[in-house]
Amino acid sequence: MNVLIRPPGETWQTRRVITLDDCRALDADDPLLHLHDRFELPDGVLYLDGNSLGPLPRGVSRRLQQVIEDEWGAGLIRSWDTWIDLPRTTGNKVAALIGAEPDTVIVGDSTTVNLHKVVTNAVRNADGGRVVTDSGNFPTDLYVLASACRVAGATLDIVEPNAVDRALADDVAALVLTEVDFRTGRRHDLPTLTALAHQVGAVAVWDLAHSAGAFPIGVSAADVDYAVGCGYKYLNGGPGAPAYLYIAPRHLPTFENPVTGWFGHADPFAFAPEFTPAPGIDRAAIGTPPILSLAAFDAALDVFVDVDLAAVEAKSRSLTGLFIRLADEQLPEFEVVTPDRRGSQVSLRHQYAYAIVRLLVDRGVIGDFRTPDVARFGLAPLYTRHTDVWNAVAQIAAAVADEPWHDERYTGRQRVT
Amino acid sequence: MNVLIRPPGETWQTRRVITLDDCRALDADDPLLHLHDRFELPDGVLYLDGNSLGPLPRGVSRRLQQVIEDEWGAGLIRSWDTWIDLPRTTGNKVAALIGAEPDTVIVGDSTTVNLHKVVTNAVRNADGGRVVTDSGNFPTDLYVLASACRVAGATLDIVEPNAVDRALADDVAALVLTEVDFRTGRRHDLPTLTALAHQVGAVAVWDLAHSAGAFPIGVSAADVDYAVGCGYKYLNGGPGAPAYLYIAPRHLPTFENPVTGWFGHADPFAFAPEFTPAPGIDRAAIGTPPILSLAAFDAALDVFVDVDLAAVEAKSRSLTGLFIRLADEQLPEFEVVTPDRRGSQVSLRHQYAYAIVRLLVDRGVIGDFRTPDVARFGLAPLYTRHTDVWNAVAQIAAAVADEPWHDERYTGRQRVT
Repeated sequence: MNVLIRPPGETWQTRRVITLDDCRALDADDPLLHLHDRFELPDGVLYLDGNSLGPLPRGVSRRLQQVIEDEWGAGLIRSWDTWIDLPRTTGNKVAALIGAEPDTVIVGDSTTVNLHKVVTNAVRNADGGRVVTDSGNFPTDLYVLASACRVAGATLDIVEPNAVDRALADDVAALVLTEVDFRTGRRHDLPTLTALAHQVGAVAVWDLAHSAGAFPIGVSAADVDYAVGCGYKYLNGGPGAPAYLYIAPRHLPTFENPVTGWFGHADPFAFAPEFTPAPGIDRAAIGTPPILSLAAFDAALDVFVDVDLAAVEAKSRSLTGLFIRLADEQLPEFEVVTPDRRGSQVSLRHQYAYAIVRLLVDRGVIGDFRTPDVARFGLAPLYTRHTDVWNAVAQIAAAVADEPWHDERYTGRQRVT
Repeated sequence: MNVLIRPPGETWQTRRVITLDDCRALDADDPLLHLHDRFELPDGVLYLDGNSLGPLPRGVSRRLQQVIEDEWGAGLIRSWDTWIDLPRTTGNKVAALIGAEPDTVIVGDSTTVNLHKVVTNAVRNADGGRVVTDSGNFPTDLYVLASACRVAGATLDIVEPNAVDRALADDVAALVLTEVDFRTGRRHDLPTLTALAHQVGAVAVWDLAHSAGAFPIGVSAADVDYAVGCGYKYLNGGPGAPAYLYIAPRHLPTFENPVTGWFGHADPFAFAPEFTPAPGIDRAAIGTPPILSLAAFDAALDVFVDVDLAAVEAKSRSLTGLFIRLADEQLPEFEVVTPDRRGSQVSLRHQYAYAIVRLLVDRGVIGDFRTPDVARFGLAPLYTRHTDVWNAVAQIAAAVADEPWHDERYTGRQRVT
């Protein structure tokens, strides 16, 4: 499948133009093609925004109905005997996808709250030192880092994404990065940067929001210290699905939750007046988790059972490589801002990206806009086909031909997450 | 209905014993009786644990199916145009139930996280001063207070519930209480204690977890500074429903969220690298809220439309008064620990409370146990009937006669929230 990825130094003149039949042939060869049917994708929609909100996996609606009617409705309080384990059992399903050891991942709270927990731990001894991140990091991550550094007396050093390695020196206490840039799709070299951080005595914290579910991540193999990520993108856990949090086993005994609640207590139902942290990953929990959202996420993860993550990554490379090549061939008005080392999205820059994205939505091609001028297309490997990429690029070309920037229906401000 | 409440000083000898017919007559007179049918209460179960997990309101399951299939499944990312407002629209429904001004309540995160937000604000200038709470407060609240006081350099003063008023002096920066004691049902005098706190220059923070939905609370009329509460008890929002948070309008401009995330930003979709808090109640939000759980809570609150909260409180008094009187008459082995000024629960103390509660569950009467020796019965006014109280007391008497403490099936440790 990697035939479509542009080899370094190759020029277009040496190759023939890609055709729809090429895309059909790639789909026919795709070992993951059958997974497309595991999702409730609406007719007439070409969905390229699964990097923002993954689609509904089949079976999740029925499972939630059981949770609501049988467990909540009929089981009532008695169902807590099952629900109480969900943060850890769902966490273990995520652990398998990010290459973490069992019982090192817990699900609950939002990505921001989980990042707050791990970052306060990562920087708590950073007084006078630097904490390194990059300017492409998701804004929330920068907000959390700025607060935590202020409290800890550390300096937050926000460098360009390609200058991260050079910023690592002995005065760095923590390296905190998002692996895949939400805007450009640029992907950091997680194992190498983690190793470089460790060489200077810093801990490495990774936000895997745009990674998990799109390719394998070996957090344990790379010796990552802490990681967080959200459930609602490539993991398809539903809108605002609870987030996950990973703590390397060596940090568990000293991990201090900055928000001490009964779900992080060693013995919640003793109702003791003093806080004693749970011995394991439970100490990263805070309060009662939102069970309906958590159960949906848990059920959604079953799509990944028996799925080879190496095949998922290969398909991601193939889909994004195809998109980039077709953009080069058919969309000369756009600048491809996604580099070769990338996640499962392609971002195109255009002065009128906002209007174009809105027009595309009306044409049934759902991508999204990121200020000021980026049109972002998520190519989730589980349900996106090569023919979808072909059709999307054709629609983008048609949208540009419509010159939507002259149409006031496509102006204004878009709100999507 | 208040005939059943024991007047001060009255002795039992002056009155006849209550009969089942008395209870039937009270139900016949109950203006809220029709609300019983608004809940999916399973056959063969007498549910007296709605103070822990409220039952499923009719219509919520269907609403969630719509959210999952139509909004998530078919609408996909486009549905965020509606979902984005849910924290505030659901917050406004809660505001009506706690007597708060519109746009002063937001829903999201857990009660613990919300308490952490308001307590860090309440104590941030408390350096060297005292923060007063009581020993009956929910353990999580004590954990959050202990951390916040440590960070702020304040002393946490945990006094007996009946000594709170005397503990208020000029060196007190904040009074932080749960209105209704989760174990005993004892209810604080919220308006009086709030006024006393203000007299000494302290702010008043209230946890309304066991209050909202059981009686009216005038947070605005009482000039409360901050309040929080959970969605899954008397508000019936579902297991782990997101919690709510109230900020008095006078504190909104200076409220600083200790966890800065994009949902609390003045302009989240500008993706600005610096955090600028939203001007209104949105600044108390953090990350993406769990939409499925939030939508269930939102739908559940519709049960309260057109319900007179004064009638809810009157019925709560009538149900709990009846339970206490019947316990006095029929359950001599138990000590009633719930005082006259109380929430909508009755707690009974018995050496073998744990075994008795477990046996009752097997008999279809669901209450719960709180360590070390309390059997707790929630009498939620919306769906509990006076005849239910009669039947529950009769079952408790029968359970004691069974002497479950001799039966090893009823020993061990119970996990309920």
